[in-house]
Amino acid sequence: MTQINRRKLLGIGAAGVAAAGAGAFATRTAMESPAPAAAASTADPVSFYGEHQAGIVTPAQDRLHFVSFDVITKKRDELIEVLQEWTAAAARMTQGKDAGTFGAVGGAEEAPPDDTGEALGLPASGLTITIGFGASLFDDRFGLAAKKPAALAGLPKFPGEDLRPEISGGDICIQACAHDPQVAVHAVRNLARIGFGKVSVRWSQLGFGRTSSTSRAQATARNLMGFKDGTNNLKLEDAAMLRDNLWAAPGDGPAWMAGGSYMVTRKIRMNIETWDRTSLSEQQEIFGRDKGEGAPLGKKKEFDQIDFAAKKPDGTPVIPMDAHIRLAHPTTHGGARLLRRGYNYVDGSDGLGRLDAGLFFISYQRDPHKQFVPIQMELARKDTLNEYIKHISSGLFACPPGLRDAGDHWGRSLFA
Amino acid sequence: MTQINRRKLLGIGAAGVAAAGAGAFATRTAMESPAPAAAASTADPVSFYGEHQAGIVTPAQDRLHFVSFDVITKKRDELIEVLQEWTAAAARMTQGKDAGTFGAVGGAEEAPPDDTGEALGLPASGLTITIGFGASLFDDRFGLAAKKPAALAGLPKFPGEDLRPEISGGDICIQACAHDPQVAVHAVRNLARIGFGKVSVRWSQLGFGRTSSTSRAQATARNLMGFKDGTNNLKLEDAAMLRDNLWAAPGDGPAWMAGGSYMVTRKIRMNIETWDRTSLSEQQEIFGRDKGEGAPLGKKKEFDQIDFAAKKPDGTPVIPMDAHIRLAHPTTHGGARLLRRGYNYVDGSDGLGRLDAGLFFISYQRDPHKQFVPIQMELARKDTLNEYIKHISSGLFACPPGLRDAGDHWGRSLFA
Repeated sequence: MTQINRRKLLGIGAAGVAAAGAGAFATRTAMESPAPAAAASTADPVSFYGEHQAGIVTPAQDRLHFVSFDVITKKRDELIEVLQEWTAAAARMTQGKDAGTFGAVGGAEEAPPDDTGEALGLPASGLTITIGFGASLFDDRFGLAAKKPAALAGLPKFPGEDLRPEISGGDICIQACAHDPQVAVHAVRNLARIGFGKVSVRWSQLGFGRTSSTSRAQATARNLMGFKDGTNNLKLEDAAMLRDNLWAAPGDGPAWMAGGSYMVTRKIRMNIETWDRTSLSEQQEIFGRDKGEGAPLGKKKEFDQIDFAAKKPDGTPVIPMDAHIRLAHPTTHGGARLLRRGYNYVDGSDGLGRLDAGLFFISYQRDPHKQFVPIQMELARKDTLNEYIKHISSGLFACPPGLRDAGDHWGRSLFA
Repeated sequence: MTQINRRKLLGIGAAGVAAAGAGAFATRTAMESPAPAAAASTADPVSFYGEHQAGIVTPAQDRLHFVSFDVITKKRDELIEVLQEWTAAAARMTQGKDAGTFGAVGGAEEAPPDDTGEALGLPASGLTITIGFGASLFDDRFGLAAKKPAALAGLPKFPGEDLRPEISGGDICIQACAHDPQVAVHAVRNLARIGFGKVSVRWSQLGFGRTSSTSRAQATARNLMGFKDGTNNLKLEDAAMLRDNLWAAPGDGPAWMAGGSYMVTRKIRMNIETWDRTSLSEQQEIFGRDKGEGAPLGKKKEFDQIDFAAKKPDGTPVIPMDAHIRLAHPTTHGGARLLRRGYNYVDGSDGLGRLDAGLFFISYQRDPHKQFVPIQMELARKDTLNEYIKHISSGLFACPPGLRDAGDHWGRSLFA
């Protein structure tokens, strides 16, 4: 009964389901049709190895489990050991296998299983596991101070933000994305289990309904304000712009980050009840787009070119001067762009009769201080949207390049 | 630009996607293969009308948004009006339409939209919206005291529970289940919007990975302890048992509940970190099943008959006397059964280095005091699982029968 692994179980499950006539749940994961992007179906695995980490330009999956860890061991070797074990587990889980062998090592049942089991029978579901290192990891505990990238310098205080330290920052983050939330949760939970006693969960966030497509093959999803989000996002097809805006180049900072990217997270609480009492025209002027189609105001289709110069008959701009798409647009920031990869969240209710909901914003960029910071500063100062949102957590992490093969592991070049 | 409705947009979206080569997201909802149960695919609508409310025996969808409201208006007529408006919105949303017309009434853009928009372009996704009335609604505010079912008498205090009042109870609950969390969230959010100023969100819970299948056509999913959950659940194919155990009969209580069912909710926090350090054999003895296949101990397959009398060579029972499946089994409770419809949850982390995760238990039954109460009392007293779980919220709601047609509305017979 032990030593049953996830792949084997999946085989049994699929056969059983076929014989039983195919339940809705099993059918959904097993029989989806191919998509043109990285994963052939939402059930399939995404490659764990490559020049860059998966989970950045990978077409955004539908579900997120994000976790930030504090390192609690003081021993450098123990931290390296955790990173090695995590790498091995991530390599397995992203391919739809267990974190370890499911039963105890050697077949004995007298040890805890090497996998927690809740993803047994589920396919890889496009799982990506992306790691990032926070500024606090580069203090004097592990001898990493000299390796700290300048890009990890603290973000400035933005007007109006109300950050909660207990859900901000952290030494190491893991972004787990998948098409099945149970698979993403399983990944984070097993990494936490492996790191037990050496790392501690600082904060964790679930999300759904990816609000920024990262491939032109994806339809643009909607945020909880009901607007399409990510129309002009950097996308995996934009090779030249990715080189200029997404990936750290060899001369940008420490050698261990070449080919990596910097991740900024912001938990953005929305006052959706107030928003819902705002008129449609005001909502559209705040965003600068129409709500139904997502077209820039004055245009017809979502991807029509934005005309910032267009004027109404009365001489006022068609797209207001403080519209979100104007303030955030690359032309306002010398061409600076982000690859956004955020998710909607609902964390229940807030005890004041309202849903606790919003956007868990994630962006990747070559240099946050030249990209996220000026864009967000402009938004924080001028965006009318600020009446309806509040930034309540913040994170900045250095995500190293991808791993070449199974001989490599997370943090190898950082600790070398 | 206004008056675009969700169905029309969906048509546009689907065409656009086909032309663009089909993104993973759009493909997933549009091209799934048929399942034999109520919904033909996970994108399709489930009928809103019928003898019983949808969302009870409907094959359990993958995602949950559950909300409990306090009624804050003191006016009976305003409450009835909310229930009427909710009924109309629920009838529309479950069929994949907006909560109202999307643009403002009459085409003006100067009013808030009648739908919040985040589900524009998404299909019905099997959405069901199920309403229940809590005991507190039957106090002296609305003249309903004489209509209160005896079955809504308070649940006893169970050993070990640690209930938090702010996430327990409530006047009215809504269970929204769908195959897409954005669709479930959209439904709850729009009902809250419609009820603004008359009802207030008391608590709300998201869930995923339905842990109890409610149809034999569904594969059994796993809870966050990694075990299959719901193997012996009441299922929609069990007509005679549903009659005896699920639906309130005409003589059971007030006439307005005939054909309805009583719902018990329990938020069950799991100490998953402790569980994950427990040996496989101990985990299996606690449940009474093997973890991989889900077979009763001593048997081979999930659905093999449980043999509670079987003994090991040393004379001890194969299935321990305090195993979960023995304590909860109908033979231990004079045949009493529940229809369970719970979901896994992860609410982030708890500030103590642990994931805040567990099971949001939902059960339906004819009489909670003859079904849930004795079963839970036995479990609360004897189940070894209690070392790893804690009940932190509780709810008991009377879910009325289904609506016949669009001339009917929620609460009509209750308020008649």
